[in-house]
Amino acid sequence: MQLLMTQGSPFARKVRILARELGLANRIDEVIVKVSPVEANPELARSNPLAQIPVLLSDDGMTLYDSAVICEYLESLGAWDRTMPSSGPARWTALRSQALCDGMLNAAILCRYEAAARPAPLRWDAWSEGQQRKIAAGLTELDAQCAGWQDAFDMTQIGAVCVLGYVDFRFSDWAWRDGHPRLARWFSHIANRASVLETVPAG
Amino acid sequence: MQLLMTQGSPFARKVRILARELGLANRIDEVIVKVSPVEANPELARSNPLAQIPVLLSDDGMTLYDSAVICEYLESLGAWDRTMPSSGPARWTALRSQALCDGMLNAAILCRYEAAARPAPLRWDAWSEGQQRKIAAGLTELDAQCAGWQDAFDMTQIGAVCVLGYVDFRFSDWAWRDGHPRLARWFSHIANRASVLETVPAG
Repeated sequence: MQLLMTQGSPFARKVRILARELGLANRIDEVIVKVSPVEANPELARSNPLAQIPVLLSDDGMTLYDSAVICEYLESLGAWDRTMPSSGPARWTALRSQALCDGMLNAAILCRYEAAARPAPLRWDAWSEGQQRKIAAGLTELDAQCAGWQDAFDMTQIGAVCVLGYVDFRFSDWAWRDGHPRLARWFSHIANRASVLETVPAG
Repeated sequence: MQLLMTQGSPFARKVRILARELGLANRIDEVIVKVSPVEANPELARSNPLAQIPVLLSDDGMTLYDSAVICEYLESLGAWDRTMPSSGPARWTALRSQALCDGMLNAAILCRYEAAARPAPLRWDAWSEGQQRKIAAGLTELDAQCAGWQDAFDMTQIGAVCVLGYVDFRFSDWAWRDGHPRLARWFSHIANRASVLETVPAG
């Protein structure tokens, strides 16, 4: 399989961590592609009209996106313990957590584009503040949730790693650890896990 | 159940159409809430830290988001024909279509914010053009796909209705029908379906 990605993408990181957790990493070629919100990448757009990563090209010829779809597909390739509950209240809670982390990542990426891609005279502080408010509220929610995580490392925790790692990568001045001590402690503990260490954002 | 929504939200419309298709509309109170990318709505943020709609408050006390999670939950409430295949290649194709339509909607909403919420001197044409490029490529993909849709009205088609309806609602000058004749014909045909008619964007 091929995974189209960048080393900085938190959505690609979700897939890369899950692949390592499932023991599938050696079956996936990680292919770095160029992504920009304003410059077309026609090659990427041929695989995904949205020109977004990650995209998985499966061995049987399927083209899959977005990250949630790819993660579900990778889970379907084996009979391991599922990282996403298949039914019942646990599934709704886990799907909601996935939506929360994905939404926080979308907000963080919009902040990044505003601060780093958009020409400085065209930046709008209220926009960035609105996105940061979503992330701050999400951090409060994750800080409360993580009290019950113990040693779990399922899609919820993978999502949280990707959020926190991306904030550290792009917005180290936000000092998110202040006010979220439990989450900070959990993140410090999980940072030594192989799948997390091997996928630290770069680029 | 309560569905927190606006009458203009295409993501809320996905849920509203599905609820009607499943015969669940009379069990759901549609509650209109105020949403803004820059002004906090603390009440909405208490239900969803992302302060985004739709949010479903279920009869048994769950708070569910985003639209894909709510749609899966509504499907789980009965034993009807599923609008989302439960396994196999059909599921991957349908999930990818859902991701495509959701991505097109996110791009369209970003265009809307750029054109209507952001102060005019701060607008960045390259940003809007980048988002429009995603939507245009997605329309080409949907135009190709719809040749095989026949009378199906599953999550893929519900997503397409929400995309096309939102483009008509907010960007009538885009003339998307030019160059996508099959999709235009399909949309014109489906526009008379009750669930579609009853949820035409407004506000």
